[in-house]
Formats: sequence, C-alpha cells, structure tokens
Amino acid sequence: MDVFPLPIARIGIIGGGQLGRMMAKAAKRIGCNCVVLDPTPGCPAGQVAGHQIVGSYHDPSKLRELAESCDVVTFDIEDIDAETLIQLAHEGHNIHPAPTVLALLQDKLTQKRALVAAGIPTAAFESMPEPSSAAFAAFGYPLVQKACRGGYDGRGVAILKGPEDDAMQLPVPSLVERFIPAEKELAVIVARGLDGDHRCYPTVEMCFRPGKNVLDLLLAPAQIPAEVAAAAERLAVRTVEALGGVGIFGVEMFLTHDGELLVNEVAPRTHNSGHHTIEANVTDQFEQHLRAIVGLPLGSTEQLCPAAMINLLGAEGHHGRPVIRGMAEALAIPGVCIHLYGKAATAPYRKMGHVTILSHDIAQARQQAEVVRQLIEISGENHP
Amino acid sequence: MDVFPLPIARIGIIGGGQLGRMMAKAAKRIGCNCVVLDPTPGCPAGQVAGHQIVGSYHDPSKLRELAESCDVVTFDIEDIDAETLIQLAHEGHNIHPAPTVLALLQDKLTQKRALVAAGIPTAAFESMPEPSSAAFAAFGYPLVQKACRGGYDGRGVAILKGPEDDAMQLPVPSLVERFIPAEKELAVIVARGLDGDHRCYPTVEMCFRPGKNVLDLLLAPAQIPAEVAAAAERLAVRTVEALGGVGIFGVEMFLTHDGELLVNEVAPRTHNSGHHTIEANVTDQFEQHLRAIVGLPLGSTEQLCPAAMINLLGAEGHHGRPVIRGMAEALAIPGVCIHLYGKAATAPYRKMGHVTILSHDIAQARQQAEVVRQLIEISGENHP
Repeated sequence: MDVFPLPIARIGIIGGGQLGRMMAKAAKRIGCNCVVLDPTPGCPAGQVAGHQIVGSYHDPSKLRELAESCDVVTFDIEDIDAETLIQLAHEGHNIHPAPTVLALLQDKLTQKRALVAAGIPTAAFESMPEPSSAAFAAFGYPLVQKACRGGYDGRGVAILKGPEDDAMQLPVPSLVERFIPAEKELAVIVARGLDGDHRCYPTVEMCFRPGKNVLDLLLAPAQIPAEVAAAAERLAVRTVEALGGVGIFGVEMFLTHDGELLVNEVAPRTHNSGHHTIEANVTDQFEQHLRAIVGLPLGSTEQLCPAAMINLLGAEGHHGRPVIRGMAEALAIPGVCIHLYGKAATAPYRKMGHVTILSHDIAQARQQAEVVRQLIEISGENHP
Repeated sequence: MDVFPLPIARIGIIGGGQLGRMMAKAAKRIGCNCVVLDPTPGCPAGQVAGHQIVGSYHDPSKLRELAESCDVVTFDIEDIDAETLIQLAHEGHNIHPAPTVLALLQDKLTQKRALVAAGIPTAAFESMPEPSSAAFAAFGYPLVQKACRGGYDGRGVAILKGPEDDAMQLPVPSLVERFIPAEKELAVIVARGLDGDHRCYPTVEMCFRPGKNVLDLLLAPAQIPAEVAAAAERLAVRTVEALGGVGIFGVEMFLTHDGELLVNEVAPRTHNSGHHTIEANVTDQFEQHLRAIVGLPLGSTEQLCPAAMINLLGAEGHHGRPVIRGMAEALAIPGVCIHLYGKAATAPYRKMGHVTILSHDIAQARQQAEVVRQLIEISGENHP
C-alpha cells in the first residue's frame, strides 16, 4: 500500500505562464505544492501556486534554488538553460522530462536529426547555419525556414513560397525543410510514466490562422477516418518512446494529401492542443503530467464530449491592462467554457486565455467557436 | 456588447474551506480575483486565492474590511454574523445570496417556518426552545432534533428513535421534527441569477453513513424514475424561488416510501452534493455560483457522464499532519479523480478531500467508489 505524507510532492515549475498556471491548479487538487520560477512577479502560475522564485530560466543559481526547494522539477516552456538542468539531474535532482531530452528538442536541428535517426517520418530538411537567398534557391522553394533556437508560437518560423518571400527570412542559424501542403495538421498528446507506461489522447485537428502560425481553432477529436487517427496515435507513441523522457509530450504532425503522416515538431511539455482535456476528457493533460512525473498511475484519456477550442489572443495594436469585450454574450452560449490567464498586460497576439466549447455535435462546436471568436475581443487600456 | 476591464470582479469569500477553495479556482479561471476571510492562516481557499484576511466570520470589522475590498461578497459557510452582512448590504455592498436569506436559513427554525409559509412540503415539526424528555415524549418518537443554530456536517442533529435515545439529545434551543423513514435522500443544486434566471442540476442521490449523518456516497444522477427526478427539480426550483436570493442553493429532500418529496434543508451556498459537477457536468457548481453573483449568464448544467462521489474523511483517532494511504492504488482505477483540500491537519471525520468516479455505467461507478473508500485512508502523524 502506498503512503504519502501530504503534500504528495513539492513540484518546481520552470516558467509561470498559462501552462504552469493550469498545472499548478491540478497540482493542488492532487495534494502537491508548487514553486514557480518566472521573471515576472505575480505571473499567471505564481498567482495560483502561491510560491514564486522571481528569476530567469537561464540563471543557473535560480534553477538550482528551485531544484533544491522541490522534490520534482518540470517546465512549461522549452527556452531554458538546459545545461544547468543536466548538471542538476546529474547531481540527483528529479527533473522531468529529462533535461537531455529537453536539450535535444529545444534545438530544432538536433530534434529533427533525432526524429530521422529514430525512423520517424518527417519532412525532408537541411541544416542552414547561415541562411541566404543563394542557399534557399539551392534547397528549392517552397520551403519552411525554422530558427534552431528560441522559436515559439509561430515566432522563429518563416514560410518562403518563392524568392519573392526572401525578405521574410530569419537571419539566424536555421534548418530549412520542404513545405508540406498538408491536408490537415494534427496533434497527439502522449503521456509517459516513470515506469514506461504510456497513454495517448485522441488525435486532434489544428487549424492555424493564415500567416500567423498561431493555433487558431482546435477540433477534438480530429475529423479524420478512425484508422488515420489510430495511425497518428501509434506514430506519436513511437516518437515519444524513441525520445524517452517522462511526462506529457505534444506531437504535431502533418497529414498529407496522400494520407501520409509526417511528424512536424515535438514539445516536451503540456501543449496548447490539449487544453480541451480539462473539460472534455476524464483526466486532463495537466494532472496527467503530474501523475507521470510524480510516479502515480496514469489516468484515463477518454474523451467524454466533442470539443472545439480557440485561443484568446490580444488584439492588434493593443497594450496595457486587458479589457475583455463580449464575454457575457459568449457565456450565454451553452457549452462555452472560458479560461483567462490572469496576465497583467495584453499585447498583440499574446495568449490571454482560451475558450473550450463542448457540444455533442462537433460541427456545432466548431460553428460556436467561430461565433465566440467574433464576440470576444481582448483589447488593452493603452492603445493609439 | 459587454465590456469588463480585468479582473471581471473582486470576489470576497467568507469562509476558506474546501468550497471556497474550489470557488477560488473557478474565479481565477473566469478572470475574477478573490479575497478570503478565514481565521486559519493558509486555509484551503487562501492557498489558492492568494489573498486572505485572517479573522473571524463573526467579527464585524473583518466583514467590513472584506466588503470594502471587493466588488461582490459571498460565503462558503452559514455560521456568519448575518446582522453585519445585512447592514453592509443596506449600505450598498453587493452580497449574494442576500444576507436576509442567509439569516433566515441559518436558523433552522426560521428556515422551516419559511418553507411551510411558502407551501413547500416538509416533515411536521415543532419549536422546542428547551428540549427535555417530557417534551420529546409529548411530540412523540421517532423524532429528529435539530439545533436551531450552528449545525453542520451532522453536528447539531440527533435522531431519537425512542426514550432510550434521550441521552443523545442536544441541550440547546431546537426544533423537533417527525423522523421520515425515507426511501432515498435526494439533493438538487439550483442556480439563480441576478436577473432571476435559474438552472437546475440533475437530481442526485445521497447515501449517509449510518449514525454519522455525513454524506457518504453520492450518485449522480439519482437512480429514480425520470418523473420523480423531474418533480424533485421542480420542487427545488420552487423552494429557491420562494426564498429569493442569488447564487447556488443546495436543496436536500426525502423521497418517502409513498413517493412523496419533502424538503429537508436548504443551504444558501455551493454544496457537497455538487462536487461531481467539476468533472461530470458542462458547468460546475462553483463557476455557476460565480456567474450568478457577478451577473454573467448561467451555464449549461448538463451532465456528460454518470458519476459517484465519496468524501475523504479523517480517520478516527487521528490528528496532525495528514498522511494518505492508497492514493496510487485508487488512481490506477480508470475514472477516479481525487481532490485533496490542502488542510494542514486531519481530525476524525474531518473532510480532507473527495473522490469523483466517472463511469458510463453508474453501478460500476458506485462499486468503484466502494473500492476507493476501502483503499484510501487519511490518517495523521499524531495518533495514539
């Protein structure tokens, strides 16, 4: 019989954004305490956790302070000083997913090479340490340029359809890959436990806002044949098994017009494509992540109700204290669940919240999501 | 179009127990801030809210401090200085449910009289300001004695089957009522909005631990004919409409062997019989309460999956820092969702958490709830 004096575990979370916030809520529910490391005092996760170390994710002394005050360390972002985490893990601190896996994935070139080495299907690519029009032309258009480091939410990615787009190129060490004219973009959330047990959430479908590369609308489950969904789930599990590591992983894929599945990117953390699991699934991705890294049994990933999800992004041109319009109108629609992240200030395209729409008819959920997107606007008190 | 600068509202919560804790989580999700008034520093709700006024629910100056620092005041308990709240409401502070309704309900005698005056069916009763064996005998056994004030979780209630039970009597001003040999005990959660709109959650069935009068197992939905459930919901709405007030109300009832429904008690707050709504229903009772008192539209009360719920009570004879046994074994059962309340110390029969079990087959959910009850024990570090 297992015995835990409470708290079950003290969890250190590097990164205090919305993912850490939802994780901290789940942590309290299952009897864990949290400490958040984030440079912004009163960050979204810190407001819920109650304990925050104010500091940079790249500050070795702060990372050490966090590790020494907790039983298990995890993260809600990838742009962290992985070398220090590797050293801390080496000294015996529990850090999940493993910092070596984080280090591998946080550089998109090493990530891509690891996927290829593991036999995971992915778009053809080349390393491009010094991007130039000549190098792009040699690789051939259309192409996707990805900065090796620091990309997030569409930053660090440029789609170059032809030489006329060269002005959009990123002047940093990159990889270039074949542009895949995908039928759909899919994502699968995989949880892997300390004992190697794994659970897969049903495949979801992601729609991106043209030109912005930020997740615009999510449909869960994906509107694809069951055998394609099953293949996507098998591929996601194979990918995570190949990488190793413990916790939640978000695996993004392309479904090509030929019905081929290609892994696009892997995130070693809870993922925007799993937010609907809070309302729609038996165990949400945040509790699942905690169960995995603490060594508790993984929970059921069954989805109880179809769902659509949209992000609430800060309006263009707006900054300062957030002002939300249309919330009451949106909440009047049955099945609308609004999550706001408690960010003190908005900025253009900043993720300020999300809305999950539950409906037994996923087409209706999608339609209502479009209505909610039109209704809700997050502006700021400081704008021109 | 509605416009809210964030936070949507500052919510003051009187009482920082588990109900306030779950309310504070819901509040953050929909963009509200919370301040909790509770005498215990670091109380369950305070850990999540981030802001706590340490003080008594009976201290007029603390109640005033709370009201003056918030846009809307609500409560997670009934044993509060209602006179001060009535005065604060009179001065223009938003307090929901209305303190006059709280005052009416917190005295079980005035509650009972109000129900009768509104034509709500309820067990026959008598006021008994000075309980005595002679008075009990005159009323007739079996009877239920209820202390007028301060009862909660089975405290303040004595069931006297005959004169031999007179030693269990409570030496305080009371009412006595006919003991109802109920077929089932039911509960209906009703939400009433600022605009008078109301929503009813599906009727649930409560099983009590013999002799302890603490909710032992909840089944949602109740295993009763649809027309009885519908009648219970109509009766609950009629009861809440008669009392007035805004927010969530828990209406407990007896279903007699003759199929009659009698209202037992009304709680002007979120309720133990609605905990399963967090996982099982589209809108949980805590967010629903906040939507009501803030003036946002009420959400769907639809239940997505059958559920059973058990409370996790502190083991007999145990005190001190809580120690939980069997949690991992319980979490290995699909559909098991554990909620721990973060209380610093356990005590016999103290509510330390609850478990919701989701299953498409409610008989299986019930069976698994019994398994979980056997598996999980909450003991304390200080015990004989």
